[in-house]
Amino acid sequence: MPGHMAWLTMDKTYRSDCPIARMLDLVGDKWTLLILRDVLVFGCKKYGEFEHRVERIPTNILADRLKRLVQYGLLHKVPYQDGPKRYHYLPTPQGKAMLPVISAMRDFGETYLGGRVPAG
Amino acid sequence: MPGHMAWLTMDKTYRSDCPIARMLDLVGDKWTLLILRDVLVFGCKKYGEFEHRVERIPTNILADRLKRLVQYGLLHKVPYQDGPKRYHYLPTPQGKAMLPVISAMRDFGETYLGGRVPAG
Repeated sequence: MPGHMAWLTMDKTYRSDCPIARMLDLVGDKWTLLILRDVLVFGCKKYGEFEHRVERIPTNILADRLKRLVQYGLLHKVPYQDGPKRYHYLPTPQGKAMLPVISAMRDFGETYLGGRVPAG
Repeated sequence: MPGHMAWLTMDKTYRSDCPIARMLDLVGDKWTLLILRDVLVFGCKKYGEFEHRVERIPTNILADRLKRLVQYGLLHKVPYQDGPKRYHYLPTPQGKAMLPVISAMRDFGETYLGGRVPAG
């Protein structure tokens, strides 16, 4: 496992040195943080589990975002079955470190947007 | 000032009841949270101040996002000068309530993405 500072900045260009801008460069779209929510809050692991969440992520976007999350070091792709080969997506320590961001968003959404966390 | 639950859900459609998904429906793009960062962390108020930040937001995107942030009840647009008329953008209480989200993103970006907060 590489050190903190090495794992992401090697092959990614950022808009600025601002840590908030870098976070958004990484996960600033409508879907990526929902996948991390599914991993960290609901324990989703399999492709089909992500695909069948209530928001119905389009399958091409799901495949792309999972690939990026693995590439960015936020998820591990771990084989759990041969013939046919199947994979689990598990959070890395860095992926787990996204939980405070997701929790803060949850607090805001519950307080101001009428949101409630769906049943797992 | 309308109550918490009224100010946003009236004219916006959300993907789901999940508060995290709703947050992302509102501000889940690469720029909106940077504008809120500029307001809440750096005290930016004027159009030109947002425009000249280091990330160089395109002016058409800035105009659109400021309009949406006002429409969503996260910023107030307050006249401060006549002839020509000029406006300040100031955070509403709901806008200020975004600070924990931005702080959590800052913590992640500083720890894992090599980010540092730029000089104001």
